[in-house]
Amino acid sequence: MRYFDDVSVGDRFQGGPLEVSEAEIIAYAERFDPQPFHLDPQAAKDTLFRGLAASGWHTAGMTMRMIVGSNAELAGGYVGMGVDSIAWPKPTRPGDVLRIEMEVLDARRSAKRPDQGVLRVKTTTLDQADEVVQVMVANLLAPARPAS
Amino acid sequence: MRYFDDVSVGDRFQGGPLEVSEAEIIAYAERFDPQPFHLDPQAAKDTLFRGLAASGWHTAGMTMRMIVGSNAELAGGYVGMGVDSIAWPKPTRPGDVLRIEMEVLDARRSAKRPDQGVLRVKTTTLDQADEVVQVMVANLLAPARPAS
Repeated sequence: MRYFDDVSVGDRFQGGPLEVSEAEIIAYAERFDPQPFHLDPQAAKDTLFRGLAASGWHTAGMTMRMIVGSNAELAGGYVGMGVDSIAWPKPTRPGDVLRIEMEVLDARRSAKRPDQGVLRVKTTTLDQADEVVQVMVANLLAPARPAS
Repeated sequence: MRYFDDVSVGDRFQGGPLEVSEAEIIAYAERFDPQPFHLDPQAAKDTLFRGLAASGWHTAGMTMRMIVGSNAELAGGYVGMGVDSIAWPKPTRPGDVLRIEMEVLDARRSAKRPDQGVLRVKTTTLDQADEVVQVMVANLLAPARPAS
């Protein structure tokens, strides 16, 4: 397990793979983003997506799933303080197999709480053709190594 | 239905309510964010959340659900170009009843494609005590009113 002290700017971690089916895309959309281009393969053809596309929030959820299973193995888990940006250069499609690349952009020990720090991490989500479906920059809370 | 031309900076829209149960919080976590503070009410007591908390991505998904059902009624639906920021000032808890307040921060017609514009929208998600659980700024694609 890695504490804040064990992580340096420039460190990279990986996660995935995670495959997504048409049924999962539709099930997510029914609950959280019920729009024709996420719900109905036929109706989606006549939209700007030109076929069924996963909600960006579904891609974000799958990305979180791969962060939790990644080899970053942060002590205390993955607690987001907030997100600095998310871009979706292309949609996730049925049958895509996703993976993530994480890169530590910044590491700041908390001034108020020296027992923890904040890691600014860029997480890129790619499909099986190595095309980028999401780029996110987020701030994760990381506990400092306990004094021995 | 509102086209890009029908929306002005400062316009406000509302959505919700949406109640979330403990079972839904756990089901989301099992699929997308399997960490003890999102999965297990007992184990969550000994974490920094001090009790079961919804994944921030679950709160984001519920927010999207309320945007789709909001009185903004954008023509073409709600297609996110990207997110400029998300903050989670406090976690969503089992039994919370959420609602959203949307505010248009900026409206820019596309230089490349005069038939569409981009709306920069701040969406604040509040619980039943009017406490803020999420603040998001995102950019939505909005088609211009077709020439008559």
